[in-house]
Amino acid sequence: MKATPARLSTAAAGFEADFQARLHWSADTDAAIEQVVADILADVRRRGDAAVLEYTRRFDRLDVGSLEALELKAPELRAAFEALPAAQREALEAAASRVKSYHEAQKKASGESWQYRDADGTLLGQKVTPLDRVGIYVPGGKAAYPSSVLMNAIPAHVAGVGEIIMVVPTPDGEKNPLVLAAAYVAGVTRTFTIGGAQAVAALAYGTATLPAVDKITGPGNAYVAAAKRRVFGTVGIDMIAGPSEILVLADGSTPPDWVAMDLFSQAEHDELAQSILLCPDADYIEQVQQEIDRLLPSMPRAAIIAASLNGRGALIHTKSMEEACEISNRIAPEHLEVSSREPHRWEPLLKHAGAIFLGAYTSESLGDYCAGPNHVLPTSGTARFSSPLGVYDFQKRSSLIEVSEAGAQPLGRIAVILAEGEGLPAHAEAARMRLR
Amino acid sequence: MKATPARLSTAAAGFEADFQARLHWSADTDAAIEQVVADILADVRRRGDAAVLEYTRRFDRLDVGSLEALELKAPELRAAFEALPAAQREALEAAASRVKSYHEAQKKASGESWQYRDADGTLLGQKVTPLDRVGIYVPGGKAAYPSSVLMNAIPAHVAGVGEIIMVVPTPDGEKNPLVLAAAYVAGVTRTFTIGGAQAVAALAYGTATLPAVDKITGPGNAYVAAAKRRVFGTVGIDMIAGPSEILVLADGSTPPDWVAMDLFSQAEHDELAQSILLCPDADYIEQVQQEIDRLLPSMPRAAIIAASLNGRGALIHTKSMEEACEISNRIAPEHLEVSSREPHRWEPLLKHAGAIFLGAYTSESLGDYCAGPNHVLPTSGTARFSSPLGVYDFQKRSSLIEVSEAGAQPLGRIAVILAEGEGLPAHAEAARMRLR
Repeated sequence: MKATPARLSTAAAGFEADFQARLHWSADTDAAIEQVVADILADVRRRGDAAVLEYTRRFDRLDVGSLEALELKAPELRAAFEALPAAQREALEAAASRVKSYHEAQKKASGESWQYRDADGTLLGQKVTPLDRVGIYVPGGKAAYPSSVLMNAIPAHVAGVGEIIMVVPTPDGEKNPLVLAAAYVAGVTRTFTIGGAQAVAALAYGTATLPAVDKITGPGNAYVAAAKRRVFGTVGIDMIAGPSEILVLADGSTPPDWVAMDLFSQAEHDELAQSILLCPDADYIEQVQQEIDRLLPSMPRAAIIAASLNGRGALIHTKSMEEACEISNRIAPEHLEVSSREPHRWEPLLKHAGAIFLGAYTSESLGDYCAGPNHVLPTSGTARFSSPLGVYDFQKRSSLIEVSEAGAQPLGRIAVILAEGEGLPAHAEAARMRLR
Repeated sequence: MKATPARLSTAAAGFEADFQARLHWSADTDAAIEQVVADILADVRRRGDAAVLEYTRRFDRLDVGSLEALELKAPELRAAFEALPAAQREALEAAASRVKSYHEAQKKASGESWQYRDADGTLLGQKVTPLDRVGIYVPGGKAAYPSSVLMNAIPAHVAGVGEIIMVVPTPDGEKNPLVLAAAYVAGVTRTFTIGGAQAVAALAYGTATLPAVDKITGPGNAYVAAAKRRVFGTVGIDMIAGPSEILVLADGSTPPDWVAMDLFSQAEHDELAQSILLCPDADYIEQVQQEIDRLLPSMPRAAIIAASLNGRGALIHTKSMEEACEISNRIAPEHLEVSSREPHRWEPLLKHAGAIFLGAYTSESLGDYCAGPNHVLPTSGTARFSSPLGVYDFQKRSSLIEVSEAGAQPLGRIAVILAEGEGLPAHAEAARMRLR
């Protein structure tokens, strides 16, 4: 088996076309999936628990008489945690503690209420409050990620969300003990073993057993993504995630086997994952390719890694680090490693990325699990306009305005003129009534 | 003509059903509109300028040979501003100045980069950066609101957005001078007189003449809303706005004609707008109804006000102010006036609202135009999970992580355990390589 990412060079004539072709990933919706999801949503909205049970029987082969029977109670979560090897228990708790500290700093820096008063006594500001109740979707089956439980539930907790409801499908009743343990560590309020569009519908509309939430976060398959998109507006949603991506910006100072392994650690997620290296040093790119060749055979997930690197990977030779930064900005990658001796020289040039990993020691995998920042990040170039999951996703703001009698005089005169200009006379009159 | 909002009392047996019926507003999508919009989006994506011109010819009856011909240049905007009466010029500038100050305070309070270092030298934080280019949709025709130009463009400016592209339809070539003047005052970068789904498509995908943006904000009709929902993911969008709403929470201390006029000022927007009064004092509710009867005949938009109040308005008698606050939280109104002698007694009880107007002098209309906070607010109960338009809508965050060699040791050991638990061996190996 060979993994040979495409070799591109910005100096080559066909670079732009090759680059665009490599980047292209279509998030086009599938009409068949859309119809199935629309039907499930409507059915759960109408029939509640009964519909959720029916779809869970059909898709997860779980046959129970009531939705209550699919709720995992706190003792079962705690038992799952306590049954883990000590090393796993400690690792989960250490990761949770760091994630919590980071998000507490985030809340302090950007998620507190603020206000000020004008000289005339008028008060202006914003009050920041937590959402009442949120739903966290956790994928089940093969790709079960306990770390995602921490990354979704902890920011919600730090924000002050009152109730966190987790849903996780358990096809054929198979439960992942690490996921249950993570729910215990993260302090999830209630857990239901349901999944798919039916779980999203239950969270969005509520049923007799499962209360409606205000926002749904967390990744899922194409059905879950389509369902989240459709319930957006009834509830909030986080983002619709595409395949995961890493971009490594290298100046050649990092051991090339470290970079090869970082590219692998993205590629091993799935065949559509994308790993890209940008580097001005052609020899170094060659060394990384040699390390890819050397290391691949020993990787347990070599087949997936090879499919990902062959299909979507790229090693791009640039004219300079500056040009590499420009190309990175065009890609707006989910994960961006600045594998350089001078990461702080390049960081100011980097405008769009979900997370920026600075220096050779900062492997993406440290960020994925335990450095502290969130690993739920914008994919497919959406870092151009969106942000990592954070405390702010579990808060909302209300503007505060208290106009004093003195303040109502100049403001009222302005409002009267503008309201009349817009043809809204009651607006004008409401302001005029407050004039002395 | 009479305007008689529904009279409800929380003490009545049928209250819950009546309350739900009054609140209900369905945002269900219209399949015919969806299909038209999907076709327009696909066509503009494929044919660019030519398609935009064709739809503009068809829907706005504007026949020009190129999209360049539909761009309004800076001198025309300035001329529109200079041709206004001095009072309007000054009002626009005063409003813009206050909106700018407020959003600068907002940026300082919640939109700055932050970072900290662990004892072992590991750096964690977030870098906050502006979006590169945004599109602002401004409705044209009858409901042309220059204040919305300020409310969308100024936060983008304060955030540091490089380029602000405004689109505003001008059916039959009719331009609104106040809208053009507001674009001048707000410092919009480029302006095109196009609208509808075709304008949203041009902003999202870009054409030969109009560059693609990163996010689209601003209100529009059902076609614009459907188009925004569909391009979400390709670009960011703000929110999908429903009909406008006001909720007045009154303890009976405000002159009843002020409250009546505040209810009118929401109702005059359109027949679907919703005005609700919550008050524990039955006599005061009666006085407000009398003021409605007395004031309505003098209102230029009396027919719209009557239709809105008769169809969707409500005067609700509550057992107490506390209960009124609870009901307000269930509604999560866009605009919430606390028309009380003790607004700061009730404010802490109010959890969900787009903007909270405290005290009798704070009419919603002052907030709509010039108090400073944004008037683009979450509607239809979405204040449960979303926020006023703000500087944060024109910024995004990138996590910053720089793990020191010392920090990579304990973090690496945790990551190895968790990655192996998740069955991701390359993740584990990438962490292990950084161990001493």
